[in-house]
Amino acid sequence: MTTWPDHRILDLLGIEMPIIQAPMAGAVTAPMAVAVARAGGLASLPCALLSPDRVREEVEAFRCDTSNPINLNFFCHASPAVDAARDRAWRQRLAPYYAELGLGPNRSVPGVAIAPCGAAQCALVEEIKPNVVSFHFGLPAEDLVDRVKAAGARVLSSATTVEEAVWLQEHGCDAIIAQGLEAGGHRGMFLSGDVAMQLGTMALVPQVADAVDLPVIAAGGIADARGIVAAFALGASAVQIGTAYLFCPEATISPTHRQALEAARDDQTAITSVFSGRPARVIVNRIVRDLGPLPEGVPAFPLAGAALAPLRAQAERSGSADFTPLWSGQAAHLCRPLPAGDLTRQLAEETLAKLEAGAADPL
Amino acid sequence: MTTWPDHRILDLLGIEMPIIQAPMAGAVTAPMAVAVARAGGLASLPCALLSPDRVREEVEAFRCDTSNPINLNFFCHASPAVDAARDRAWRQRLAPYYAELGLGPNRSVPGVAIAPCGAAQCALVEEIKPNVVSFHFGLPAEDLVDRVKAAGARVLSSATTVEEAVWLQEHGCDAIIAQGLEAGGHRGMFLSGDVAMQLGTMALVPQVADAVDLPVIAAGGIADARGIVAAFALGASAVQIGTAYLFCPEATISPTHRQALEAARDDQTAITSVFSGRPARVIVNRIVRDLGPLPEGVPAFPLAGAALAPLRAQAERSGSADFTPLWSGQAAHLCRPLPAGDLTRQLAEETLAKLEAGAADPL
Repeated sequence: MTTWPDHRILDLLGIEMPIIQAPMAGAVTAPMAVAVARAGGLASLPCALLSPDRVREEVEAFRCDTSNPINLNFFCHASPAVDAARDRAWRQRLAPYYAELGLGPNRSVPGVAIAPCGAAQCALVEEIKPNVVSFHFGLPAEDLVDRVKAAGARVLSSATTVEEAVWLQEHGCDAIIAQGLEAGGHRGMFLSGDVAMQLGTMALVPQVADAVDLPVIAAGGIADARGIVAAFALGASAVQIGTAYLFCPEATISPTHRQALEAARDDQTAITSVFSGRPARVIVNRIVRDLGPLPEGVPAFPLAGAALAPLRAQAERSGSADFTPLWSGQAAHLCRPLPAGDLTRQLAEETLAKLEAGAADPL
Repeated sequence: MTTWPDHRILDLLGIEMPIIQAPMAGAVTAPMAVAVARAGGLASLPCALLSPDRVREEVEAFRCDTSNPINLNFFCHASPAVDAARDRAWRQRLAPYYAELGLGPNRSVPGVAIAPCGAAQCALVEEIKPNVVSFHFGLPAEDLVDRVKAAGARVLSSATTVEEAVWLQEHGCDAIIAQGLEAGGHRGMFLSGDVAMQLGTMALVPQVADAVDLPVIAAGGIADARGIVAAFALGASAVQIGTAYLFCPEATISPTHRQALEAARDDQTAITSVFSGRPARVIVNRIVRDLGPLPEGVPAFPLAGAALAPLRAQAERSGSADFTPLWSGQAAHLCRPLPAGDLTRQLAEETLAKLEAGAADPL
């Protein structure tokens, strides 16, 4: 019987199969996490947009149904400095759309509050004691990382370059997520600033594996068993899969987003800063086409999103995705609409079958 | 004994191992091609920059040493329209560099002549009768493709999207090179116009493999046996490898280029149109940093290169790579300086060893 070729991540995180469901903010709640955890993968709960009470509720719901490991995910961005001129220019840039949709240009908009991981989140981790905590955009301050580890959690974070991977190893990570540029959603980049120099998964994973002693989790463009086997061949011990889980009925995404994913072709995504101020891969829609994916003058993360929110809400009311961030990686076309537990099991079974067939028939 | 998992490309092209040495214009001449062919891979002779007589000489030199298959590569770009204003603006943009290097701003510069594949190239193919002809930037006119095939050559071309792969299949290709954006040198894109929407190898290969009936050759970010095994897992029948062959002593690249490749880190390349007018991946140097990788107003391919040539020549005289197109993929750091025959054999042996170890130890 074939088994997983590399047990380091399984042993480290206490899971049965080396498949990590990506923590996709806004798209994952307890039902998906439960399904993945029960199937034997690592369930990830995105906490960046949730209040501490909401995190407690989700974890409680999760733990009612399973005692398998849970990963809590937080963002480690710097809190943005207020830049009134930049913010005003951004709103002026969007003013024609406000007019077109019949929204008042001076409509007051609540800021999008995304708290970076600080003492409050750390206290929450100490209270909840998740098995795993993963971070995006680097790591929190050193003393907070120490407290998370002291609370018994294994620490993961994403690297988009070898330099970031080495930095994460030096700052206490237990495993490195090597995030190739095929990945949907926000790039984890935190030392690198230039999207044009980001790496594809094929080139990134082996170079990261060579540079660190920690196990590597491959992410980006992996949506079926072919990608998982390929990731192992490149030196990864596990994979993190995002877009494929957006197709699950448990994904809490809008019908607009779901329709766009189901219709997506391979060549319709781009990395844009338009929706949040940080580079993230989406299916290209009107606002990205109009402004260009990486325009000058976008407010700092996460402030850019505030002025877009009313446009998005108004457009979606009439079924338009013109202003919706249609998060997606480059392999949406490979995805199948299965319940999250079935998807996790099927990915694992198909991968093991390919590994068993091995050289005789790896395809 | 383990053998190659997929024999389609071996049978189609008449080679012993599914490794294609990429046809890198300016970097490959007969000695490298002979070494690769003798080792059992597919040798590729880049013909886009060569006169018919030079092609004849190279092929004659090749055939003195081996009767194994040869691939002749041609470009299929449209001949650029003359745009005097654009050309003048481009020269003005470069004028400060001319002044800095002590070159007269009105120095007359010979145009860079790169003939697109036409009747003359087709006649050359009919005369030489190579086993394989590969094209970049699409395919030549239908009657020329027919003549190339009638001359006994198998036809390959590069796709950077599923749409391009399907188009190539419909227009007579015998196999598709799926070129992920990790690849060094010119993107083969011919239906796609937007670099921001190009795909990584991990996402591109399985989607192309699903969309066409032809065997797929993976390219981009593949520089060692890990990448080759990964490419097979993704559904490729063979790989095309470029950057790794630039490290061979047979590569006819400048010392400046070689030094830059040897020092390259993973996160130092970008896709730029600065050097030729078409998007191509290079190690980022001063001119790319100064102008940005994809500036407005660059003359059409291949005209952009003419005004840069004197700057490059003058700078290289003092050991500077400021204006040199440092072609490279994203995995230069994985490459080893071996003779081309040894490299080919070693890649094949290490790949077969990994395939044989299979699930027991794929790493």
